[in-house]
Amino acid sequence: MILYKQDIAKLNDIISSHTKTFLLFDENTEKYCLKIINSIDILKSNTIKIVIPSGEQHKNIKTVQYIWSKLVENGADRKSLLINVGGGVVTDIGGFAASCYQRGIDFINIPTTLLGMIDASVGGKTGIDFQGLKNQIGLFSQPLAVVILFGFLEILPKRELLSGLAEIIKYGFIVDKSFLEAKLQNNLIDPVLIKKAIEVKDEITRLDSTEQGRRKILNFGHTIGHAIETYILDNHEEIRHGETVALGMLPALYLSEKYLNLNHQITLYYKNIYKQKFNRFELDDIPVEDLLEIMRHDKKNEGGDIRFVLISDLEKPVYDIVVNEDDIKDSITYLVDYLRDENYWCK
Amino acid sequence: MILYKQDIAKLNDIISSHTKTFLLFDENTEKYCLKIINSIDILKSNTIKIVIPSGEQHKNIKTVQYIWSKLVENGADRKSLLINVGGGVVTDIGGFAASCYQRGIDFINIPTTLLGMIDASVGGKTGIDFQGLKNQIGLFSQPLAVVILFGFLEILPKRELLSGLAEIIKYGFIVDKSFLEAKLQNNLIDPVLIKKAIEVKDEITRLDSTEQGRRKILNFGHTIGHAIETYILDNHEEIRHGETVALGMLPALYLSEKYLNLNHQITLYYKNIYKQKFNRFELDDIPVEDLLEIMRHDKKNEGGDIRFVLISDLEKPVYDIVVNEDDIKDSITYLVDYLRDENYWCK
Repeated sequence: MILYKQDIAKLNDIISSHTKTFLLFDENTEKYCLKIINSIDILKSNTIKIVIPSGEQHKNIKTVQYIWSKLVENGADRKSLLINVGGGVVTDIGGFAASCYQRGIDFINIPTTLLGMIDASVGGKTGIDFQGLKNQIGLFSQPLAVVILFGFLEILPKRELLSGLAEIIKYGFIVDKSFLEAKLQNNLIDPVLIKKAIEVKDEITRLDSTEQGRRKILNFGHTIGHAIETYILDNHEEIRHGETVALGMLPALYLSEKYLNLNHQITLYYKNIYKQKFNRFELDDIPVEDLLEIMRHDKKNEGGDIRFVLISDLEKPVYDIVVNEDDIKDSITYLVDYLRDENYWCK
Repeated sequence: MILYKQDIAKLNDIISSHTKTFLLFDENTEKYCLKIINSIDILKSNTIKIVIPSGEQHKNIKTVQYIWSKLVENGADRKSLLINVGGGVVTDIGGFAASCYQRGIDFINIPTTLLGMIDASVGGKTGIDFQGLKNQIGLFSQPLAVVILFGFLEILPKRELLSGLAEIIKYGFIVDKSFLEAKLQNNLIDPVLIKKAIEVKDEITRLDSTEQGRRKILNFGHTIGHAIETYILDNHEEIRHGETVALGMLPALYLSEKYLNLNHQITLYYKNIYKQKFNRFELDDIPVEDLLEIMRHDKKNEGGDIRFVLISDLEKPVYDIVVNEDDIKDSITYLVDYLRDENYWCK
């Protein structure tokens, strides 16, 4: 169930039907988002706050144990409710902690980032990292509700908005080309497009809640993007998830040309979108072998093959395409060359 | 799906449809049960063994992390299979570890104790203890199959058989009075009754997989039984789960008389069963206040009340009955007095 600001009465009903309500923040959302949360009466009073450290490096079993211990300490029972307030890290970890507490208590997500709204908070993927592998441990577990408050976007840094924008544009390739027109204007993204993206994600994930089939199309741009993200974060550099998806879509289009005869014009069209909307990154020194090694551990693989979502045309995604490693290397070279071309970027 | 020895061909099919198969043992089952497991060709070859320490004290998140690390180390992917070989501790912990690995891989239970066969391995309750609370963390997650091999019962100590017998007799009160006739004879329990008990548990739990309603009847005898078990184990004394259920059913019958007008003859009838079949325990010194404190943390409670399953007659269970603490104390006194009565036990 997706709730917007005008549906807050429903949130009241949900909270009153639970014995105790817990609010999970990380240090950042406690600092920046508490004001908006406190403007909602039912969230302000009679709730118990749990605060975890911020950042992907804390998305681990230790933080989950901390949440469980706070729930025990405050007498949470099976009819208690956990409300996760934050970006993807908080909703992933909070959803997992709730789903395992006393064999599962209800949870609600209140995403505070654009990426969280259109991606992490919807669809029921919860989890934590384990031994350097992203989301290696987790569950498919649906939140009781996702509460979308656009007010959070007004205090979000531009780079965070762009990170969400990349996931919206992804829907342009796999579901509905009108998403390709999404853009950042006066530091805002059209709320109608955002709502539409949320509803697309909600529908696809409800029809395939455990990612057996069609839901896999949501991973377009993610195979190489995710490897770049993991590599960069492992090396203690900074990059946003959406930024790596924006990067990863280019080699995915290159491979789509090779494997599914995608028209080259679409790749050129995306280069144009990329240049207008996203930041240039310098990837000259990224070790392709390390990226491949990360891809080999991708949960979406089976029996050792590396699998991609590619498209044969706009809105025509195909999942589970086994791509050989030489072609993957070529596609990464294609991306690196694109980013290197001074003439292109400086004219 | 319940598989017996004659269905082993199906096990072959299941294993061949997975990329890798892992076998989870604890130190005891590795020592005593490996021979029977190795007599099944498909389990002997091409499987990867994981061994965890034995005992309830290791049913914790640390052991789960050990299992996850072994799965990662050996390249388990989403289509891998974990087969749990052991009693309730192994099937509970293995089911939980599998259900969280890469958001859930398939698992199979091969219970090696009578209690495991008729109780822990069937029904999809998985979990671990946390901060001294039994099964505080866990999931409802169904095994792909439960494989029942009666051969294990031949090497099971008598006390373990009696522990399972108590759960079979429990079904006599809540489902079908013919279970009250179950007994240990020549160190065997009628396999027809065992199969019937497994099927009863399977059916009840499938119809209410997350224990919203009728499944709760399975907790008959467990509220006080479970408190006694926790108290005794916390004090590093030994007692079997089934033994505490056998004890817990007597105060449950006492309370059934008081709350649901159960005929006193049924309580007397059970005393007779108890004396014939189970061991006498000395509970004179058990602190009733400590038991109550444990009961207050029972996951089945809501909003602070302590809830019981009671019966109004044989085969007529009623769940979610709120019992006040004075009555609970009286019922424990009734049990302690019963166990104390020298004349009764020595004649």
